[in-house]
Amino acid sequence: MSFYPQIKQILLGKTLPTSAHSEERLSNYAALAVLSSDALSSVAYATEEILVILVAAGSGALSLSLPIAVAIILLLGIVVLSYRQTIKAYPKGGGSYIVARDNLGLFPGLVAGASLMIDYILTVTVSISAGTAALTSAFPALQPFTVSLCLIFMVLLMLANLRGVKESGNIFMIPTYAFIVSIFVLIIFGLYKHATGQVVTSYPEIPVQQGLSLFFIMRAFSAGCTALTGVEAISDGVLAFKEPEWKNARLTLTFLGVILGIMFVGITYLSNIYHIVPHEHETVVSILGREILGTGSFYYFIQFVTLLILMLAANTSYADFPRLCYFLARDGFLPRQLALLGERLVYSNGIILLTLCAAVLVIIFKGDVSAVIPLYAVGVFTSFTLSQAGMVRRWFVERSSGWRSSALMNTFGAIATAIVLMVIISTKFLRGAWLVVVAIPILVYIFLAIHRHYEYVARRLSIEEIAPCSYPPRPKPEVINHPAVVLVGQLNRGTVQALDYARSIADDIVAVHVDIGSTDRERLQEKWQQLESDIPLKILESPYRSLIEPLLDFVTRYEAQQHSGVFTTVIIPVFVTRNWWDGLLHNQTTFFLKNALRATKSRVVTTVRYYL
Amino acid sequence: MSFYPQIKQILLGKTLPTSAHSEERLSNYAALAVLSSDALSSVAYATEEILVILVAAGSGALSLSLPIAVAIILLLGIVVLSYRQTIKAYPKGGGSYIVARDNLGLFPGLVAGASLMIDYILTVTVSISAGTAALTSAFPALQPFTVSLCLIFMVLLMLANLRGVKESGNIFMIPTYAFIVSIFVLIIFGLYKHATGQVVTSYPEIPVQQGLSLFFIMRAFSAGCTALTGVEAISDGVLAFKEPEWKNARLTLTFLGVILGIMFVGITYLSNIYHIVPHEHETVVSILGREILGTGSFYYFIQFVTLLILMLAANTSYADFPRLCYFLARDGFLPRQLALLGERLVYSNGIILLTLCAAVLVIIFKGDVSAVIPLYAVGVFTSFTLSQAGMVRRWFVERSSGWRSSALMNTFGAIATAIVLMVIISTKFLRGAWLVVVAIPILVYIFLAIHRHYEYVARRLSIEEIAPCSYPPRPKPEVINHPAVVLVGQLNRGTVQALDYARSIADDIVAVHVDIGSTDRERLQEKWQQLESDIPLKILESPYRSLIEPLLDFVTRYEAQQHSGVFTTVIIPVFVTRNWWDGLLHNQTTFFLKNALRATKSRVVTTVRYYL
Repeated sequence: MSFYPQIKQILLGKTLPTSAHSEERLSNYAALAVLSSDALSSVAYATEEILVILVAAGSGALSLSLPIAVAIILLLGIVVLSYRQTIKAYPKGGGSYIVARDNLGLFPGLVAGASLMIDYILTVTVSISAGTAALTSAFPALQPFTVSLCLIFMVLLMLANLRGVKESGNIFMIPTYAFIVSIFVLIIFGLYKHATGQVVTSYPEIPVQQGLSLFFIMRAFSAGCTALTGVEAISDGVLAFKEPEWKNARLTLTFLGVILGIMFVGITYLSNIYHIVPHEHETVVSILGREILGTGSFYYFIQFVTLLILMLAANTSYADFPRLCYFLARDGFLPRQLALLGERLVYSNGIILLTLCAAVLVIIFKGDVSAVIPLYAVGVFTSFTLSQAGMVRRWFVERSSGWRSSALMNTFGAIATAIVLMVIISTKFLRGAWLVVVAIPILVYIFLAIHRHYEYVARRLSIEEIAPCSYPPRPKPEVINHPAVVLVGQLNRGTVQALDYARSIADDIVAVHVDIGSTDRERLQEKWQQLESDIPLKILESPYRSLIEPLLDFVTRYEAQQHSGVFTTVIIPVFVTRNWWDGLLHNQTTFFLKNALRATKSRVVTTVRYYL
Repeated sequence: MSFYPQIKQILLGKTLPTSAHSEERLSNYAALAVLSSDALSSVAYATEEILVILVAAGSGALSLSLPIAVAIILLLGIVVLSYRQTIKAYPKGGGSYIVARDNLGLFPGLVAGASLMIDYILTVTVSISAGTAALTSAFPALQPFTVSLCLIFMVLLMLANLRGVKESGNIFMIPTYAFIVSIFVLIIFGLYKHATGQVVTSYPEIPVQQGLSLFFIMRAFSAGCTALTGVEAISDGVLAFKEPEWKNARLTLTFLGVILGIMFVGITYLSNIYHIVPHEHETVVSILGREILGTGSFYYFIQFVTLLILMLAANTSYADFPRLCYFLARDGFLPRQLALLGERLVYSNGIILLTLCAAVLVIIFKGDVSAVIPLYAVGVFTSFTLSQAGMVRRWFVERSSGWRSSALMNTFGAIATAIVLMVIISTKFLRGAWLVVVAIPILVYIFLAIHRHYEYVARRLSIEEIAPCSYPPRPKPEVINHPAVVLVGQLNRGTVQALDYARSIADDIVAVHVDIGSTDRERLQEKWQQLESDIPLKILESPYRSLIEPLLDFVTRYEAQQHSGVFTTVIIPVFVTRNWWDGLLHNQTTFFLKNALRATKSRVVTTVRYYL
């Protein structure tokens, strides 16, 4: 019995008291590492996802990746500028759910919440899958275990988060900055090697499956937009910065934009000049690494660091998803269990829910990044748009100093992200985006249904109407008058104990036995008169051998006719076996009996347990 | 809610009152049909199972099937003579379990019981598989659905038996006598066609995989011994005969022996002169039918009748297995649930158990008769031997008139079946018989463990020691003095109702609230004083946010310090949602709380239900 708690303590550590709950403040460097790993890590797959689409139009089309990447970087600039306004306006942290709810109303807020929930789940799926791909690119022998590896990484993340990852930037900084430095080194070496003419490659002949069209290019653009996921994380976590929070957060966000832009364009440019063709079993970054650096220790270092930053990116969702669930649960749109602090002061249920959802997606999509990408980014751009639109509304309502330029910036951001959202949905719709388009309204519907239920319960349980004046404190009755029915199977020690209990709580007691055809009635009555003659024993006929129906009839009549308006206690003696499996050897009637009595709205059904 | 009972009533019919329970008496013709279908139907596969083994030694070995069949018929004669003695000695029906228990003691009785249980399950598996093979031989397109067909037939049998198949011989007589007539027609036509020289075939060339050896021939003999399964059924059901029961039963048993012998030898002889080689996808009877009668309507008739009689054979187990389970459960060796008459006056649980076990075997062995045969017959011959040995013992103890010849007959039978049992086990051991050899002692162990448990419970619950004199009827206490603890989450209508209940059963009440860090204590106490000031409200600290531990501590202290020696009632208010899924939206703490609180004796945990 004490096995499970022990295992749990080893894995998760000791229960923490509520008083240990506190927020840590992060330096800008640490904050960049902690809050931006999701955004930065998308460099590991965004270029590849553009190339995977373009390659269908032959090798000539691959060079289109560079202008597409530049367009995405421009979009990134707009989003960053736009979110700088949000950070200033919500110095306590403005997630899309809160911004949209505050300024646009309940419904847009819930749409933003649903979108974000879906996207956080997809972030875990994509990041873990991409991290595993970095590993299997370096060690192709691990290829067949892709899904298992993904699930193992996910369970490790879950355990770490259930334990409570202190967001202590120091540890988190290492892989983030190692990744940034590695990618910069890769870019610089790659450019140098190419400039000195050490590498002269050209594209292999690739069969053209598809002509170039605007729609096709838009599809590649949509795939690349996944690079923008996670940019909003800094605006959610303003409170994690040191004072002055909003200024530090804005600065860090700008840095993030610049670094992400350089890395993304750099990798895309390299894959152009090195004529990289996407490959099913190796990532583009891995191919570039081998070409530029050879398969040496630095190559393995890059792959390892890529795996780590992608784990961190998934970890971002482990911080954000449970927090979003907490907000939604607190407001009554998700089950209350999601608002409970677990033993280690984290929202354990949210962490487990996220893991389950992401694991299902990994299993369905077999840990293949490209398969999930069409679902990804729909949610993020929905929440971008709603959040920016909310800001626009806010500026127009508040009209604080300098509101015009802020409003302009946010309007521009809202329009740009809305257009991109349309592009993403229209180009990816049939390839999987429809799933998200369908899922968001379903989620919103569920939110509202849950809310209605909680409101209904609160209304029904409310004691507002029984106001103090109309409902004075009732003194305890002088003499207790309480009826009880005791069910008797055989006359054994368990029954004797139940009768004793009945005597201690009630003054009007009747014992009932059901004869299903095998009772020696005379003998039972005789024994009864010897031992329990103060309580009448009623023997019920059961021509159809059912215990439940005659009892139910009797109790219903007893409650309604003789004791209406007062509580009746129905007492069932049960005996407790040493092991649960011993219990299987005895009739399970008690369970059905209790359910049946409850179905007829008997309010108090009590089992008196006799321990063998 | 009323959906399941409706479906049940359509499938199984209305519940029958106990008074409808009665036994029907059968004429000898009807009894032969009802009780002997298992034995007779083995003609459909016994010859084939001999040939399947012999064919490994080349076509020359196939002709050995005839002497083997004759040897089996001799054995049949011995068994029939032997069981004639049992019928006379046990005119009320002497199953092996009862005969062995009566005369040899508990342990041999349980071994016989376990053997029979296993063999009844295997009878269903083999008969259903063979019946399906008759069908798929006629319609090869059904081959891929073998397992599904087997399961469908089994479910139909189960439903029919749960409904209560009135063993009205009239319906059962049709397939049995149709089968007997068909096989006789087939034999006569086959002999005629051969005698008139219309058919001249010879064995095809078959590669010899195995040399002939005594062991090999013994294996073929063992496989053929499955023809004897079911012969004991008449001696189990003597009471189903008209008066004088035992004479009629003996006569019928003799008839069974003669008919079975002729059919078995006939089929085997035909397969010799028609040079039949066993085939994976067609039964020997089907091949013979096509050769002798052509693929015409009479051929299809034979296949259909074969399917029907094999269904009847399986149905025999559906009568015998639940009855055996009833005997074992009545004596406390199997769970009591197996001794309960169901709504339709049948032992429903035994019927369901048999179906489950047989279905598992069908799935494991993919509905292949030859794969199950090595497991089969071990149990039957074990119970044959024990039953005959029991009879020998009985004759020597009773020494009634003419006991010497009866004892001789039974001794001969016991020795013969014991030898055959040895042969069967040794030749089939590695091919699957070991499973049964291992399963029998395991089953016996389980029987004994269950028995020990029931005895332990009975001893612990016994009121023998609290004899009338030392335990006079206790009058109800003049004034009820009873303590209660009410758990309070919020102050709502559910809580108010629970407090009212507490007032009606107890005079010493305390209300307890656990603050996990989110309670507005002042507001709660203020509201409390307005509404429930007569009951003290205690607010417990919970630094680790657990509801359960502080409550458990409090209740334990409350009981030990202030109210030791009397019952304490712990009252938990719960509210009942309209649907079970609504319940998921509320904390499931009540469940864990109840389990945690129940760990102690002399404490009664009651939920007071508030219906929304």
